[in-house]
Amino acid sequence: MSSPADLPSGLDLSHLMDTAYRQARSGLEEGGIPIGAALFAADGTLLGEGRNRRVQQDDPSAHAETDAFRAAGRQRDYSSTIMVTTLAPCWYCSGLIRQFGIGSVVIGENRSFQGGEDWLADLGVSVTILDDERCTAMMSKFIAANPGLWNEDIGVVDDEGDRA
Amino acid sequence: MSSPADLPSGLDLSHLMDTAYRQARSGLEEGGIPIGAALFAADGTLLGEGRNRRVQQDDPSAHAETDAFRAAGRQRDYSSTIMVTTLAPCWYCSGLIRQFGIGSVVIGENRSFQGGEDWLADLGVSVTILDDERCTAMMSKFIAANPGLWNEDIGVVDDEGDRA
Repeated sequence: MSSPADLPSGLDLSHLMDTAYRQARSGLEEGGIPIGAALFAADGTLLGEGRNRRVQQDDPSAHAETDAFRAAGRQRDYSSTIMVTTLAPCWYCSGLIRQFGIGSVVIGENRSFQGGEDWLADLGVSVTILDDERCTAMMSKFIAANPGLWNEDIGVVDDEGDRA
Repeated sequence: MSSPADLPSGLDLSHLMDTAYRQARSGLEEGGIPIGAALFAADGTLLGEGRNRRVQQDDPSAHAETDAFRAAGRQRDYSSTIMVTTLAPCWYCSGLIRQFGIGSVVIGENRSFQGGEDWLADLGVSVTILDDERCTAMMSKFIAANPGLWNEDIGVVDDEGDRA
């Protein structure tokens, strides 16, 4: 187990989370799954932002972190970048963070869902969980109202049949 | 550790690999990184195929497996599907396979690169490595000629500076 990396100092994490949260709200307004993410440079410069677009684009690969990563374009070194996401990253997006060596992850909440956050921390990624009540309220309400769509998004097979 | 799942029987894996290999060759002809993938149903029906499009689309998230997964559209149950890829899946694409419960992975070769194949097998995914000489020759030649681009694609920071 590596030592966890440090988050770059002097950043207002709640302010960074605002960007991801706005993305999630936009997704909700579009009829999508309300998860947002943003990739920042170490100095807080926004590199790319995105949101889950499974419903909007009929694209099952468009998880929020992947969408933000894509929006940031080709970067040569991710080690000092920070992935900010409203919800704990699933295994797919955790794999993204590992493969590309993203140094830090800031998570809005992991009450609604737990993914690869412990795995990433064990691998030396800096993981910060803000326990942001806005994020938890938004996600828990969405999941309660749309269990089939939510299960589809995380690859859980059920018989709910309420796929959007 | 779960018991590895079984590949659906009666499939010609070399024939399935042909589809992924053709995708990789198309990528090479386009000036891209020659990795191809295809997602099949248990009976061998093609659900989606794709290739690495980092160069072609300036999209760092467009790894071959993700591109094929995207092309297959929204599926409700991946447990009996087969992801066929010319090269061992990186952590990002291994995370995709885990999160969505793709039951089987067929890998052209893992001499040029090792990703999450052992991790997936330990988790109960059926992993088959064909050791396909076409795939190995194509990839090893590409990596030797384009080390910087290849390192960029797998998140390795170097000073080669030959980014395409």
